[in-house]
Amino acid sequence: MTDNSPHKPVLLLDEARCKKNIERMVQKATASNCDFRPHFKTHQSARVGEWFREKSITGITVSSVSMAQYFHEAGWNDITIAFPFFKGQIDGLKQLNRSCKLRLFVNSTDDVRQLSESLTNEFRVYIELNTGSNRSGIHHENTPQINSIIETCTKFENVQFHGFYVHHGDTYKARSKEEITELIAPTLSIYKKMNVHYPEAKFSLGDTPSASVLTNFDDIDELTPGNFVFYDWMQVCIGSCTLNDVALFALLPVAQVSKEINKAIILGGAVHMSKDFVEVDDARNYGQVVNIAGNEITPVPLYLSALSQEHGAVSGNVETITGNHLVVCPIHSCLTANLNGHYVTRDGKIIEKRILS
Amino acid sequence: MTDNSPHKPVLLLDEARCKKNIERMVQKATASNCDFRPHFKTHQSARVGEWFREKSITGITVSSVSMAQYFHEAGWNDITIAFPFFKGQIDGLKQLNRSCKLRLFVNSTDDVRQLSESLTNEFRVYIELNTGSNRSGIHHENTPQINSIIETCTKFENVQFHGFYVHHGDTYKARSKEEITELIAPTLSIYKKMNVHYPEAKFSLGDTPSASVLTNFDDIDELTPGNFVFYDWMQVCIGSCTLNDVALFALLPVAQVSKEINKAIILGGAVHMSKDFVEVDDARNYGQVVNIAGNEITPVPLYLSALSQEHGAVSGNVETITGNHLVVCPIHSCLTANLNGHYVTRDGKIIEKRILS
Repeated sequence: MTDNSPHKPVLLLDEARCKKNIERMVQKATASNCDFRPHFKTHQSARVGEWFREKSITGITVSSVSMAQYFHEAGWNDITIAFPFFKGQIDGLKQLNRSCKLRLFVNSTDDVRQLSESLTNEFRVYIELNTGSNRSGIHHENTPQINSIIETCTKFENVQFHGFYVHHGDTYKARSKEEITELIAPTLSIYKKMNVHYPEAKFSLGDTPSASVLTNFDDIDELTPGNFVFYDWMQVCIGSCTLNDVALFALLPVAQVSKEINKAIILGGAVHMSKDFVEVDDARNYGQVVNIAGNEITPVPLYLSALSQEHGAVSGNVETITGNHLVVCPIHSCLTANLNGHYVTRDGKIIEKRILS
Repeated sequence: MTDNSPHKPVLLLDEARCKKNIERMVQKATASNCDFRPHFKTHQSARVGEWFREKSITGITVSSVSMAQYFHEAGWNDITIAFPFFKGQIDGLKQLNRSCKLRLFVNSTDDVRQLSESLTNEFRVYIELNTGSNRSGIHHENTPQINSIIETCTKFENVQFHGFYVHHGDTYKARSKEEITELIAPTLSIYKKMNVHYPEAKFSLGDTPSASVLTNFDDIDELTPGNFVFYDWMQVCIGSCTLNDVALFALLPVAQVSKEINKAIILGGAVHMSKDFVEVDDARNYGQVVNIAGNEITPVPLYLSALSQEHGAVSGNVETITGNHLVVCPIHSCLTANLNGHYVTRDGKIIEKRILS
């Protein structure tokens, strides 16, 4: 990508960094004796999926039935749908279950019964646990419900209880490796105890911060992070990675530089970047401007301070803006990737992806 | 739409309400002797555009060159691109300028010169004014720059200076009709003064709150709001409309109801709704759950309190959740519409729209 006046935002995928992120997580999972089932919701691209397949990955994780369909069509035959089962999924699951090994999330004995009656072939189920982040799943102390689900599974020939799944979103509140480790510790303690009571169950962990910084995976059998494939500015702030690990950037055309109010306007709004932000000293950062020089990525004193639909307002030292575009490290690469139709690699290759969730 | 288990989020477009919103704004513009050039960035749909054409609208506003191309292909031949001109636009503008009347935003004499040299046919330009909201445009007191741009326009045969444009985003901070009126008053005063100095110029106003509640348009020649076509929960909070004016809703499948933590999980996350929110008493509302009974829309004590990629967390009185889905009034209909591939009307018609910005 050269500086010859882009007409719209371009998502730059650094293939080498992305493959390095994949390689690093594969090695970590192997060294930790964990099954690695990467979450594909971040890249949503059959082509990027191939880079995992080259590393002998065969099982993946997705967040919806339609995303499972997309990746099944791309040749993936062992898919976890990491979203609580609901009745509307059934038609799609029936189709998938004919030719794809499925792992599904159940919250009740009714879920197990409905699924068993609807799906012909064998499938596995996870119980998602709420270990304190209070998003989804069954509270880890709700032993009666957990046990009745596991027991119900034994009554149906086509259902196999596989294990427990936790996405502990609280690690996103961390601002250092140490804080990540502290925030995930209670979940690991819960897993340690449950390992004793459910020796046959597999224990799965989903968040990128934990998967990135933990060194002890004794009580974990599976890792399913997704964001690590690209990382982003939020993960840099959390402490999951350094800026030099980030593999996705947005090239945003500069439209106006107003030195009198020390602000610039770029084409790069909520419809290109998403409206996620990181709050730093009461100021919202919707994207960090960086400089890519050869193999070094460094932050520059400019950031996206406000986004409307297509306008991005840039604050900081706007005197430093010279070229036709800015390179922005997205706050949340999953959402930025979702908003765009394809990626472009540093050597100009188009990498297709799924459009619309 | 009945309650028979949707498998993914559906955007419900209330055609009757939408047409009423169009009709109301057309009448208001006519009564106020204003040219009405609606912003089509909200609906991004050729079909919805037809509903404006039925009301004799011929000139429209868009936010990018590619959106102009989409609507030009749908038969619109008089288009304002309400985004600061930048060099990367030129190739697209050259194409459009062959068969479409264009109005463009310029910030410098250089912009005028570049455009004039690049485009064959006549086009008009606006100077966007910054009247205090500090997003984009030239500061209204920067008379030398304003005058030099206007003078430069006279030197080129194919350029015509059309007038001034303001999108005063500060009205979005209002929480009542009175506050909207107060917040837009300084801009109207600026327009009144400038009307004297630039008697030939047209004065244009862009924000939906002002267009919705102002009654005196003496110093305004053109109205270009966009959001009013659907409105949304933010506009209800601002005071631009009532909930009964809102014409776009999301039907979101219920996936899990956890009474012990008084929370529900629906399929409806950042990739379906956007991550915009309204802050009420320190709590973020990412979408207001409503009940549609016949022709009455009423809020219910439930709201989207957190969104991850596909999960929406619902807070409030979850005991009241009974059906397979919730009906949610989006916070920001422009962004929610942008994230979805089509609308479905109350009688089940599919309304196609543009996909990806």
